[in-house]
Amino acid sequence: MSTARIAALQRLLPPLDVDALLVTDLVNIAYLCGFTGSNAALVVPVEGEAVLVTDARYTERAKAEAPDLEIVLERAAGAAAARTAAERGARRLGFEAEHVTVAAHGALIAAAGAAGLCRTTGLVEQLRAVKDDAEIAALRTACEIADAALSDLLAAGGLTEGRTEREIARDLEDRIRGLGSPGPSFDTIVAAGPHSAVPHHAPTDTPLRRGDLVVVDFGALERGYHSDTTRTFVVGPAAPWQRDLHALVAESQQRGREAVAPGADVTAVDAAARDWIRGAGHGDDFPHGLGHGVGLQIHEQPWIVAKGTGELAECMVVTVEPGVYLSGRGGVRIEDTLVVRGGEPEALTRLPRELIEV
Amino acid sequence: MSTARIAALQRLLPPLDVDALLVTDLVNIAYLCGFTGSNAALVVPVEGEAVLVTDARYTERAKAEAPDLEIVLERAAGAAAARTAAERGARRLGFEAEHVTVAAHGALIAAAGAAGLCRTTGLVEQLRAVKDDAEIAALRTACEIADAALSDLLAAGGLTEGRTEREIARDLEDRIRGLGSPGPSFDTIVAAGPHSAVPHHAPTDTPLRRGDLVVVDFGALERGYHSDTTRTFVVGPAAPWQRDLHALVAESQQRGREAVAPGADVTAVDAAARDWIRGAGHGDDFPHGLGHGVGLQIHEQPWIVAKGTGELAECMVVTVEPGVYLSGRGGVRIEDTLVVRGGEPEALTRLPRELIEV
Repeated sequence: MSTARIAALQRLLPPLDVDALLVTDLVNIAYLCGFTGSNAALVVPVEGEAVLVTDARYTERAKAEAPDLEIVLERAAGAAAARTAAERGARRLGFEAEHVTVAAHGALIAAAGAAGLCRTTGLVEQLRAVKDDAEIAALRTACEIADAALSDLLAAGGLTEGRTEREIARDLEDRIRGLGSPGPSFDTIVAAGPHSAVPHHAPTDTPLRRGDLVVVDFGALERGYHSDTTRTFVVGPAAPWQRDLHALVAESQQRGREAVAPGADVTAVDAAARDWIRGAGHGDDFPHGLGHGVGLQIHEQPWIVAKGTGELAECMVVTVEPGVYLSGRGGVRIEDTLVVRGGEPEALTRLPRELIEV
Repeated sequence: MSTARIAALQRLLPPLDVDALLVTDLVNIAYLCGFTGSNAALVVPVEGEAVLVTDARYTERAKAEAPDLEIVLERAAGAAAARTAAERGARRLGFEAEHVTVAAHGALIAAAGAAGLCRTTGLVEQLRAVKDDAEIAALRTACEIADAALSDLLAAGGLTEGRTEREIARDLEDRIRGLGSPGPSFDTIVAAGPHSAVPHHAPTDTPLRRGDLVVVDFGALERGYHSDTTRTFVVGPAAPWQRDLHALVAESQQRGREAVAPGADVTAVDAAARDWIRGAGHGDDFPHGLGHGVGLQIHEQPWIVAKGTGELAECMVVTVEPGVYLSGRGGVRIEDTLVVRGGEPEALTRLPRELIEV
């Protein structure tokens, strides 16, 4: 696996006219070679073997996780990687401009000596956007755990009048762990009543009240991979405006899902969902993008947004999550995690999408 | 609080000859103004009011958490902050060179127009290193929760032959949450037998065996603040070499603790503990620094390391955590979180430091 991924990266390098790429983003390093320590850099030459730099705390882990790689031990991993590449003859070194800070860049320049540094952007991210079978299997399990956790919570009466947002979030996260996940894939959002109109609300001690819309946005981890689901409920019988709002967002989400296909421009997918909401006069009440890739990070390429660039490709895994938020009253968001497939996308999250009264 | 912290930062700016500082690190922003959203930038002028930039997802949260600040809504928060500062007359803008990537730096330059950008390092971190009463209170609670969680685990027989590293880590983390913390302050380390010789071991399904040294390194969160403790146990009666190793590290830790005082050079504090271990012939088996600051991050300034710079000051909160690791046999680390005080440091973590046989 790691060798194949490093080889795929090497195939992207020739047009850049670099002798080697310095990979310093830890998620990218984990993706490429499997190493998960908190301090590392990876030298990927245009041809030949990659070198992993980490420090002495991780000697054993590096050998276990990246058994095929040469390992160099040094605390200042990025600088040591630049020096190693230069010592081995590289004259032009690519680096990850979106991950190297201005301060670290200075250290790389000093360590590279006579070798020149050259900005690159999104090379490993571009590879990561398209998932292989093992990655999709991990994402599928993460999504199954999340589905089961929310189903169990509902079956146990865990989403009910009087319970606080915080209690519900805690309960759901405990169920995720109880199902074998290392934990939630991000801080669970439970947003009740007016809070549901806040797209990224952090749970409070506010109890659920009859008549509240309740947005639950959550996910599970599995082998480093993240799931992402949102469902919106009503406490007690739904008012007509709540039913209408939910139906509006559900139809928008369905249109977005139908637009997800290999070759679809991300802006067209966003528009497929957004135009429906805009047509209903709520364009300004949908203040975020339609979706994003999920994988080793909860938010990663591709970005399905109105001002995005690029196309979807088979085996990308993305969310589709329109939302409409009426300040002071409440909001609805519906989100699933989908695999881009040749025909219809494959839904990894499969909870019912109808409005549920709890 | 936030106004006082912003004012303290403003007092650091005149020698830098900047008209305003762009703060883009999210932890630094949370420290300065209380805002906790995931996308933000803060313009701190040399004089006058700061401006918080975030996006429409966080309108409500920004008003609630930073009620005294002017709020600008824009998705590209860093660039919008640079533009805002320039539009209001700033000609030289400081930015955080340790937090702005090379790619983001390009966007700042473009947005700043005629205004020049000027690197700064560690300004807010320097303020954050010295804690105020409210911060120390949060750290104290985090440490009390951690102490109680490990005590409860021991009392319940949770650290015992046959249980796996992963089970124990999960149990300890559940107890931390059960005591009212949002969760562990980092991924709990439980390292048994030969794994205890790996300073940063990730828990596995390996069960504890009679005769194992077991390193448990863990902490709790409280209002965003982190605790950090390590204790080392033996399963069953300790062998003489295990007692000796534990006594060596315990004496080293005691010497390190005694060196913690206002005005102490960080290298001298490191040496106070390290020299004892080196004198016993184990210098090479202690491959990490003696300690670090803890606060809104688990690792932050000051760094108590052999090649560090700077002095401790009253109300810094630091760890003291020597360790000796014998590859293939086992290791011992003992760590506490301490407040630097005029006399002795104040220990926030107060678990017994003797070797416990479980």
